[in-house]
Amino acid sequence: MLTTNPFDDDHLHEECGIFGVSGAADSAAALVALGLHALQHRGQEAAGITTFDGAQFHTHRAMGHVAGNFDRDEVIRALPGSVACGHVRYSTTGETALRNVQPLYAELASGGFAVAHNGNISNAMRLRRELVRRGSIFQSTSDTETIIHLVATSNYRSLLDRFIDALRQVEGAYSLIVMTPEGMIACRDPLGIRPLVMGKLGDAIIFASETVALDVVGAEFVRSVDPGELVIVQGTEMRSIRPFPEAAARPCIFEWVYFSRPDSIVDDHSVYSVRKAIGAQLAIESPVDADLVIPVPDSGVPAAIGYAQQSGIPFELGIIRSHYVGRTFIQPGDKVRHLGVKLKHNANRALIAGKRVVLIDDSIVRGTTSLKIVQMMREAGAAEVHMRIASPPTKHSCFYGVDTPERAKLLAAKLDLRAMTDFIHADTLGFVSIDGLYKALGEAAREGVRPKYCDACFTGDYPTTLTDHDELAEVDQFALLEERVA
Amino acid sequence: MLTTNPFDDDHLHEECGIFGVSGAADSAAALVALGLHALQHRGQEAAGITTFDGAQFHTHRAMGHVAGNFDRDEVIRALPGSVACGHVRYSTTGETALRNVQPLYAELASGGFAVAHNGNISNAMRLRRELVRRGSIFQSTSDTETIIHLVATSNYRSLLDRFIDALRQVEGAYSLIVMTPEGMIACRDPLGIRPLVMGKLGDAIIFASETVALDVVGAEFVRSVDPGELVIVQGTEMRSIRPFPEAAARPCIFEWVYFSRPDSIVDDHSVYSVRKAIGAQLAIESPVDADLVIPVPDSGVPAAIGYAQQSGIPFELGIIRSHYVGRTFIQPGDKVRHLGVKLKHNANRALIAGKRVVLIDDSIVRGTTSLKIVQMMREAGAAEVHMRIASPPTKHSCFYGVDTPERAKLLAAKLDLRAMTDFIHADTLGFVSIDGLYKALGEAAREGVRPKYCDACFTGDYPTTLTDHDELAEVDQFALLEERVA
Amino acid sequence: MLTTNPFDDDHLHEECGIFGVSGAADSAAALVALGLHALQHRGQEAAGITTFDGAQFHTHRAMGHVAGNFDRDEVIRALPGSVACGHVRYSTTGETALRNVQPLYAELASGGFAVAHNGNISNAMRLRRELVRRGSIFQSTSDTETIIHLVATSNYRSLLDRFIDALRQVEGAYSLIVMTPEGMIACRDPLGIRPLVMGKLGDAIIFASETVALDVVGAEFVRSVDPGELVIVQGTEMRSIRPFPEAAARPCIFEWVYFSRPDSIVDDHSVYSVRKAIGAQLAIESPVDADLVIPVPDSGVPAAIGYAQQSGIPFELGIIRSHYVGRTFIQPGDKVRHLGVKLKHNANRALIAGKRVVLIDDSIVRGTTSLKIVQMMREAGAAEVHMRIASPPTKHSCFYGVDTPERAKLLAAKLDLRAMTDFIHADTLGFVSIDGLYKALGEAAREGVRPKYCDACFTGDYPTTLTDHDELAEVDQFALLEERVA
Amino acid sequence: MLTTNPFDDDHLHEECGIFGVSGAADSAAALVALGLHALQHRGQEAAGITTFDGAQFHTHRAMGHVAGNFDRDEVIRALPGSVACGHVRYSTTGETALRNVQPLYAELASGGFAVAHNGNISNAMRLRRELVRRGSIFQSTSDTETIIHLVATSNYRSLLDRFIDALRQVEGAYSLIVMTPEGMIACRDPLGIRPLVMGKLGDAIIFASETVALDVVGAEFVRSVDPGELVIVQGTEMRSIRPFPEAAARPCIFEWVYFSRPDSIVDDHSVYSVRKAIGAQLAIESPVDADLVIPVPDSGVPAAIGYAQQSGIPFELGIIRSHYVGRTFIQPGDKVRHLGVKLKHNANRALIAGKRVVLIDDSIVRGTTSLKIVQMMREAGAAEVHMRIASPPTKHSCFYGVDTPERAKLLAAKLDLRAMTDFIHADTLGFVSIDGLYKALGEAAREGVRPKYCDACFTGDYPTTLTDHDELAEVDQFALLEERVA
Repeated sequence: MLTTNPFDDDHLHEECGIFGVSGAADSAAALVALGLHALQHRGQEAAGITTFDGAQFHTHRAMGHVAGNFDRDEVIRALPGSVACGHVRYSTTGETALRNVQPLYAELASGGFAVAHNGNISNAMRLRRELVRRGSIFQSTSDTETIIHLVATSNYRSLLDRFIDALRQVEGAYSLIVMTPEGMIACRDPLGIRPLVMGKLGDAIIFASETVALDVVGAEFVRSVDPGELVIVQGTEMRSIRPFPEAAARPCIFEWVYFSRPDSIVDDHSVYSVRKAIGAQLAIESPVDADLVIPVPDSGVPAAIGYAQQSGIPFELGIIRSHYVGRTFIQPGDKVRHLGVKLKHNANRALIAGKRVVLIDDSIVRGTTSLKIVQMMREAGAAEVHMRIASPPTKHSCFYGVDTPERAKLLAAKLDLRAMTDFIHADTLGFVSIDGLYKALGEAAREGVRPKYCDACFTGDYPTTLTDHDELAEVDQFALLEERVA
Repeated sequence: MLTTNPFDDDHLHEECGIFGVSGAADSAAALVALGLHALQHRGQEAAGITTFDGAQFHTHRAMGHVAGNFDRDEVIRALPGSVACGHVRYSTTGETALRNVQPLYAELASGGFAVAHNGNISNAMRLRRELVRRGSIFQSTSDTETIIHLVATSNYRSLLDRFIDALRQVEGAYSLIVMTPEGMIACRDPLGIRPLVMGKLGDAIIFASETVALDVVGAEFVRSVDPGELVIVQGTEMRSIRPFPEAAARPCIFEWVYFSRPDSIVDDHSVYSVRKAIGAQLAIESPVDADLVIPVPDSGVPAAIGYAQQSGIPFELGIIRSHYVGRTFIQPGDKVRHLGVKLKHNANRALIAGKRVVLIDDSIVRGTTSLKIVQMMREAGAAEVHMRIASPPTKHSCFYGVDTPERAKLLAAKLDLRAMTDFIHADTLGFVSIDGLYKALGEAAREGVRPKYCDACFTGDYPTTLTDHDELAEVDQFALLEERVA
Repeated sequence: MLTTNPFDDDHLHEECGIFGVSGAADSAAALVALGLHALQHRGQEAAGITTFDGAQFHTHRAMGHVAGNFDRDEVIRALPGSVACGHVRYSTTGETALRNVQPLYAELASGGFAVAHNGNISNAMRLRRELVRRGSIFQSTSDTETIIHLVATSNYRSLLDRFIDALRQVEGAYSLIVMTPEGMIACRDPLGIRPLVMGKLGDAIIFASETVALDVVGAEFVRSVDPGELVIVQGTEMRSIRPFPEAAARPCIFEWVYFSRPDSIVDDHSVYSVRKAIGAQLAIESPVDADLVIPVPDSGVPAAIGYAQQSGIPFELGIIRSHYVGRTFIQPGDKVRHLGVKLKHNANRALIAGKRVVLIDDSIVRGTTSLKIVQMMREAGAAEVHMRIASPPTKHSCFYGVDTPERAKLLAAKLDLRAMTDFIHADTLGFVSIDGLYKALGEAAREGVRPKYCDACFTGDYPTTLTDHDELAEVDQFALLEERVA
Repeated sequence: MLTTNPFDDDHLHEECGIFGVSGAADSAAALVALGLHALQHRGQEAAGITTFDGAQFHTHRAMGHVAGNFDRDEVIRALPGSVACGHVRYSTTGETALRNVQPLYAELASGGFAVAHNGNISNAMRLRRELVRRGSIFQSTSDTETIIHLVATSNYRSLLDRFIDALRQVEGAYSLIVMTPEGMIACRDPLGIRPLVMGKLGDAIIFASETVALDVVGAEFVRSVDPGELVIVQGTEMRSIRPFPEAAARPCIFEWVYFSRPDSIVDDHSVYSVRKAIGAQLAIESPVDADLVIPVPDSGVPAAIGYAQQSGIPFELGIIRSHYVGRTFIQPGDKVRHLGVKLKHNANRALIAGKRVVLIDDSIVRGTTSLKIVQMMREAGAAEVHMRIASPPTKHSCFYGVDTPERAKLLAAKLDLRAMTDFIHADTLGFVSIDGLYKALGEAAREGVRPKYCDACFTGDYPTTLTDHDELAEVDQFALLEERVA
């Protein structure tokens, strides 16, 4: 089998996108379907929508894309109601069972309770063990279900108090959209690690992971939900509470590097503009004498435009991307063993032959695809191949809802710049600096003590405790100790 | 229902792509699957592969894409043999039954006979009527089947003579790959209207509609099959005959405008380079004072780069294309009726607001999508919107294997430039001239008497007779006459 | 739409069959699949199998029959282990979601816990309300899940004690097969309302709803599980405990009338022999002068043979049953509106014309199909049609795991014998008496104070309290009261 | 894998059933669906319906049963028209492709032509070779398509003359229903080998393989179509022609033995009554001292009733048949290897233990299932097992549309009575005599020179020449000769 995604499979993957609407008369489910479609890049494995029609909750969840599952009349008609939320999911664990697909739903004593979650609870395992010990029965392996059981077993009386009680016990990253018979609650963890924005469409109130989903449904962008804020919506009325201690926000910087769509505006910065600015900064920090600037499609395009404009080297499409991509293809027999894998991307030979090219990509994770793409340029006759990366070296795992390989597989965690350059067979390789990245976001530089963003994947500076991870690490160390003793 | 392809549905569509291989040991079907995948843009409705294992023919045909149908091990294993051909199809007629999917296959007295066809037989209806009258029974509504029945009922003795006898009776455009127990025959009609190239992979001989399919399987490009040439292959041996009277070639010029992939080389011209040259020519012929050059994704990109480089106006991604496109989506209810349709494309608002933009597209067919995209730019706050089209006005139907709307639906057949500009709500509109198009292909200008290309869709100058079309027109006129008399 | 089951849809339906095996090396799942197939008549809506491989539990559940879902190699191979249990289900509620299909499974603090249940917990709703109030989250609408939550939240320490604690709180009918990491527990409620037998196959220990399932897997019948007995199996070892107060058994008498297969032996009585004996008793109690004894296929056959042998009237196949039965068929248009519905059964006209026939059926529920079948006989030319029923009139609902229509739809609850005879258009109608039914089981008569069987559907004498039903009735009466006051 | 049809797979199989209706307003397709359902026992592999709405033909064909494919509203609605014919098919060749499913359809110069065929053309291969030589292209491997090409290439002028011209060239067995734009033609081969009856439903005229299909649609039986008769129907008008030389009829006697449903009347004889008469004749010819007469379900039941009534030995259900039969089941592992295969049939142990049983079956083909069933009786404790067969020994293949194993696999072609008795492990074995079979049909005996039925499977006396078979045999003999010489 040959994978047909030689380049895309070497990215970090956002795990989820969420979208909710309240006060949408009879079009809530249709709006959520459109919104989730616009957020599909945040999770392609599964999708789900839950609606509330004033009396009953309705849920449809499916493996696969929004289109194909939620674009059929009968599916949408089976999801009546003026309030709805939805979720697209990319699994970190390989556990793809439908019961893990969100929104999760439970019937509590107070009535139905649905939740869509973007992020990751970093003490979910510890909380789960304790809940099971006391008699809770879990349906899924999802960390999100922990929140529901905390609400169900809370000793507080009102649902809102029970929910706040639950959130105070969890640690990590979460943007949540919750539906109960009384209304919708949208909230963002105290550090605002994952994004969440609010919009209006007529009287209807909308929440979404990115502004592009507001654009697609024709809604007006109002503002971001604040870190630590709970927005409580009943019909078209809303109010806000902030039940957590004040904390300096630390939104994920990788949203601008790769996760968010270029046409989204995340926390007041146009993603496209930031990416172009990173490219320009890269041209300043890491210049090269060359004939063509070539983006690795499609995520490298904005940075490549920035690089080209800054450097004066022409921007050209040196790699053509097929629109018709399957999963895998049978490998032809021995005789034709050494085929390049050009199902998804193919070199524009006529353009490249004899030229010195600068390839622009957004990031390097394992490095395997950078290697393939450099080789593809050389096979097409490039005279020199220079790789420029529009982010700092990715050296650390993410525990906040992003699918990262274990550290041992991160190229930059193992090799220095020289060795990485050799590994991918490039003539030169350059990354933008961490300060350069902050500059593209309008800062003077990264402030060491109190940085404005979560940049743990580049710096290892995690903004929260990591209970489950530390417990596992402890066990591993004990195991190690025992091994040594024995 | 809203379509999610607001822009793509306003293109002419190539009907077919073909790929054949001989002498490929046990990997023929796998190579054809890879090759067809690379030709998927030429036909997305259905695909088929036929192989010959020395004793028996094997065929698998399916509605839908190559990926998803021909990337599974069990499908490829059920297609043994060292000789194979395949076909991707886009239907002109709406008749999508599996029995029309190619390769077509029949058992003749001489043994099995399979054929994959790109093009259109313009006297197929007249030939079919005569064949049926003599007792032939057709399985499909495809014009291609006519060729098979002509071979089956020919009075010549050898299969090759019967095949040539058949071809001499057909008129129109055809690139064909034929398989018989004795070998493979590839041929191109006397005018070479549709493309066909030849390649080598080790000893194996390959035929394909475009060079990109050679790239994807790792094969070396040898040359184009000549107009009027039959290449006869037995195993890895080949010879060539030219049974038709000499005629000046007239390859389809729209292959460079839109049909072929930018990374293909068609009749010695890089498609990407030609498109950039058209864009540059357009900047010369139709300049405008503006802030941004924005391609209509993805087909407008090369011309936009050419336009930007020629004009000095920066190239920017002002329209973002979703990678996750479904067919259609439910339209939300009354309250949100006037949503823009941004499922597939969305304006990059932060970039566009307040700017004068030049939109570059490859062609205008009905004009409906140009209208939508101009509106999308205006809604995103563009100060001025100038549309530039990298081909002359499309005024005439194609009868050579391209899906064109009837003339009455072609915008340029109905309106002059002023009216078209108004129709799409642009500030200005410009097309490249027919001579400009020939210039981008290295000619001085279009030579009126003996033009080098088939450009009938722009000029109405059809290079062959059109028997079926003329007969229908006659009937229509009679009908009209009768109506008047009555 | 015409239903094709004109006769079968007028039966009471057993809701479930269960089958478990322990100590079966690597064939546990295959044995359960075979066993469930033999129990398919007890539930056709859905089926499930859970296995334990020493480390992990594996479950596959599917809507539909065992054959078609559990006869595929890959399904069975995905269910490894030497311990397994399974379930076939017929829904009472119309709730057919997969999450209600058994075996139900939960991860408790003590490890995995799977349960397959035949019967009905008659205080499940009350227990559930209380559990939810304390924070339990239910996944299904099944009464069986109540047992799992009672185990999960029990204050006892050992799993066995927690399970007994749970059972002591439930009321109603239950034959259960439970799997935990420590082994299998099979048990039957204190009155033994639903059946459960034990068998051996080599060293493997087997539990099943009926002996026919033992026959089909080649196992030897050992004995019935006693009412109130828990059989605890670890590998091939077993022991028995009886944690409930002694109570006189009351197994369901309808198992002999209709539910069990004729080749099963239920509590020491051959089902076939009992049915023949009922038929003979019916010939004594309700004789008639006639030419032919005709069974309503297939359930009326044994009683018809008994009736024929006792009466001396020849047994003949007067109704032919199609083996190819679909769900429903389109009704042809107006012109042919009054078609008889003979898709499933058809009169053997040549036999019946001019004859006096005795029809033998096992029971009458709504009476709709008796009417149709009498009409079918008359249309085929029968001179007289006498209906004889091999059970007493069915007048009361069952709350112990049998799908009964509400009382208002039971023909015998509304009409006396004369009116029923008129309703079904028969010349005469006769039921066996309740004492006659007990006689066929070897008793002298039904003992009013201490009857040996649960015969509540005939007598209204329910052997347990019916908490949920009584609460609902109370609510209904309150509603009624309020209505009257208002 | 274990087959779940241990008994049924040892039967000869009728290959087809056909049903047609003309003049049925808008219900033609629905009537055909009902009729085909009633004929499902004649072919379970595939089904098809073709309708004509006055302007166009519509066809739907599907692998599988009528129910499940033709009981859905949308399928029937897509088959408009007042004229329709349909076909159920059991393949003899293993070629199960959809293109072989009937009705076959072709567009001839005279318009659409559909045909449904029950029988087998015994010179189809010779005719096909000649047609292909002249340029005809076949779509299927079906012998029926030969008829269509003969019509298409006939030199006669009118369609009726062309059809008669075609039939005069074919040899073998055929009951045909043909649809053209001008009407329906039903016909039966000159010997009337396969059955065909005519009925009326209001004004609509109906043709069907068996009367049971008339019963099921509520139609009145009119008469059998005569051997050699063509019935030509236009709307509700009909006329009859007999274009063949007179010949004594030879209808297939196996229709009464097994193929037809017991509730059908074939050529004036009730199938049920004939089967009972065979059973009675068997009791006279082959008596035995025993306790129980047990039918092999379901086809042995009528003969068993006849045997029991004649002999005075009680009729009992000693074998219980499951209604839920799948195709195959995984065989459990080594430990339980020697399971009896009781998925479909199970011994009624309580009845059989210690008894002397007479098993009644309709025929023996390979004998494999007779062996299994005798063993099942012995395992259940039968004291003696006597097998009686309600037909003479099956010694010869059928070439008239019945699926027979090659002669070498027919038990009675290889072994004498003693050896057959030993092979199936019975105490005694008896067949009804060929004269006894004719007696059950009201004849004095089989008349050797001019027998009234085709009984070639018992006698080897084939009523037609067998061109294809003889040519193959010749080739085989040549091969044999060459082998000897070499």
